[in-house]
Amino acid sequence: MTDKILIGLDRAAEIISDRDNILILTHANPDGDTLGSAAALSLALRQLNKRSRIENSDEIPRKYSYLFENTGDEDFTPQLIMSVDVADQKLLGAIEEKYDGRVELSIDHHGSNRLFAQETCVDPESASTAELILKLIKLLGTPVTPDIANAIYTGLATDTGCFRFMNTTANTHMAAAEMIAAGADCAMINKLMFETKSFSYMKLEKRGLEGLTLHFGGRVAVISLTGEDFRASGASQQDCDAICGIPRQVEGVDIGITMREKEEGLYKISVRTNGSFDASAVCQRLGGGGHKGAAGCEIRGTLQQAKKAVLDAAEEYLLGC
Amino acid sequence: MTDKILIGLDRAAEIISDRDNILILTHANPDGDTLGSAAALSLALRQLNKRSRIENSDEIPRKYSYLFENTGDEDFTPQLIMSVDVADQKLLGAIEEKYDGRVELSIDHHGSNRLFAQETCVDPESASTAELILKLIKLLGTPVTPDIANAIYTGLATDTGCFRFMNTTANTHMAAAEMIAAGADCAMINKLMFETKSFSYMKLEKRGLEGLTLHFGGRVAVISLTGEDFRASGASQQDCDAICGIPRQVEGVDIGITMREKEEGLYKISVRTNGSFDASAVCQRLGGGGHKGAAGCEIRGTLQQAKKAVLDAAEEYLLGC
Repeated sequence: MTDKILIGLDRAAEIISDRDNILILTHANPDGDTLGSAAALSLALRQLNKRSRIENSDEIPRKYSYLFENTGDEDFTPQLIMSVDVADQKLLGAIEEKYDGRVELSIDHHGSNRLFAQETCVDPESASTAELILKLIKLLGTPVTPDIANAIYTGLATDTGCFRFMNTTANTHMAAAEMIAAGADCAMINKLMFETKSFSYMKLEKRGLEGLTLHFGGRVAVISLTGEDFRASGASQQDCDAICGIPRQVEGVDIGITMREKEEGLYKISVRTNGSFDASAVCQRLGGGGHKGAAGCEIRGTLQQAKKAVLDAAEEYLLGC
Repeated sequence: MTDKILIGLDRAAEIISDRDNILILTHANPDGDTLGSAAALSLALRQLNKRSRIENSDEIPRKYSYLFENTGDEDFTPQLIMSVDVADQKLLGAIEEKYDGRVELSIDHHGSNRLFAQETCVDPESASTAELILKLIKLLGTPVTPDIANAIYTGLATDTGCFRFMNTTANTHMAAAEMIAAGADCAMINKLMFETKSFSYMKLEKRGLEGLTLHFGGRVAVISLTGEDFRASGASQQDCDAICGIPRQVEGVDIGITMREKEEGLYKISVRTNGSFDASAVCQRLGGGGHKGAAGCEIRGTLQQAKKAVLDAAEEYLLGC
C-alpha cells in the first residue's frame, strides 16, 4: 500500500477537472449516501460538459429512481475511474474483480477506509460522503441545482437516519439548510426514505416484534427473522433494513441485534449500539465490520447456532468493556 | 375579540423586558415544543435576573426532565402571564379556568391560533414555537447557553419528527446547526425522543400492527387499540403517541388513523395525512382540529361505532377532494 496516498478535496477537484469520461462506482447494496453522492457528482459533471456513468454491482432500489432522471449514462472508455462512499475494494461487490486495482480516486467518509484507490480523500468527521461531494462540487465551480440538492440531501439524510444519529453535526444541518434553499424536495425525499413502508413490511415487523427477546439483564435485544417470516409476510430482504433499528430502541438496551435468514442456513447479522458501545467490535469477532454504531456480519448455521454465536460475541464484548 | 391584537417578536421582547415574575403556561399533554419553548425562555429570563415559573395542567413525561434542571421555579404573584405553543385557551387543560382571560402574551406557531391572549405573536411559517423563542431570546439579548440550546433543539426536533415532516424549513436546519454549535447534546436528546421505546410499547405496537386495516382501496389505514390492548401490553396512553405515525406510513395510504380507547367508551382519534390531504378537515367533521398533517378528535361509543364515524368522516373528506 506504499503507493497509495491521502489527498484533500482540492486535489480531488483537480483530478476531476483534468479528465473527461468519468466512471463513478458505488458500493454494493447501494444506499442513499453512495447513490446520492454518485448522482450529485454526475449531475455536476454534466454541467461541466463532462461525460460520466455510474456503475454498481446491484440493482438500485426503485425508491431511489428520482436521483437518476438527469444523470450521465454515456458509453465510453473511462479516463478516470473513481468511487464514492466505498470503504474497501471488496465492497464493490460483483464488479470488484473488473475494477481490481484500477480505482484511481476514492472519496469517502469511513474511518475504516482501506486506501484501495491510488488517491483517497477521506473525512471521518463527515456524517456522509454527500457532505464531501457538496464541497467538491463547489470546488469544481458548478452551481447547486435542485437536482443536485435532492441528491446531496438524500445522502445527508439517509446516512444520519434523518439527522437522528450521533454522527450528525452542525455542518450536516448547515448543508441540509443549504440544500433546502437550493430547491431540494425534502418532503418527497423524507416520505420516500423514512415514511413509506409496504404492507408486507408491516407484517414482517409484526413477526419480528413477536419474537423480540432480551438478554444479559436487558442490555442486549434480538430480533430474528427466518425465511418463513419473509415468505409468510411477503416482505423482501430490503424490507428488513428498517427493522434493524428496532432492537436498539428498547429502553435500557445497549446492543440491538437483528438476524435475518438471507438464504437457507446463512444468517445476516446487523448490530446497532447505543452510547459508547461499539457494534463493529462485536461484528469483528465474527468476521464482519462496520461503524461504531452500526455494523454487520454473516453466520452460517441454524437459527439457534447463529443466535448463540452472536450472543457469545456480544457477551465477550460487554465483559471486556 | 376586538381587543385582541397580533404583535411581532420585537413587541413581545419589549413586554417581557418590562416585567419580572413571569408565569409561562404550556398546553395540556405537553410535548417537546411547548416544554422546550417554556424551558428555553425560563433559562433566558434567569440570565436577565428575572424570576419565572412554568405551569401546566398535566404531569410532565419523565423523558423531558433534563429540560428543567436549571429553569426558574419561583413562587410569586405574576406580573406577566404568558403562554407558549398554545393555540387555544381550552388547550391549557385543567388550568384553563384559573387563567381564563388572564393570558396577556401568547407566542405560538399554529395558524389555527384563536387569539385568546391580549397580545399574540404567531408565525405559522415556523415549524416550531421553539424557533420563535430562539429569535425572542436573541432580541432579549441573552446568550444561548448549552441548556437553552438543548431546550430549543428539543422543540425543533420534536415538532418536525426530527426534521422529517413537511413543515421543516431551511430555517429549522439553520437553527439546529446553531444549537449544536452552542452545545446542544443532540445525541442524548434524539435518543430520548426518537430512539427509546419501552418493552411494553413494543408489545403495544405488535398488537396495533396485528389489527392494521386498509380501507377505500388502500387510501386509508386504521390501527385501533382497546383498553385490553393497553392492559395486556402494560403500555401507557403516552406510549401510543409513536404508533400514531404508523398507519400513514403504509405505501399508498393518504390518511392514517389511530384510535385508542382513552377510557371506557371514549376513543381518542389521531389522524395523520400525506401530501396535500388535510387531517384537520377530517377531524373538524368530528368536533376536533389540529394541523394539516396531524389532527385529532374524540368519539364516544363502541370501537365499531367510533371506527365507522371516523371512516365516514374520512370518506366524506376524500369525496370532496
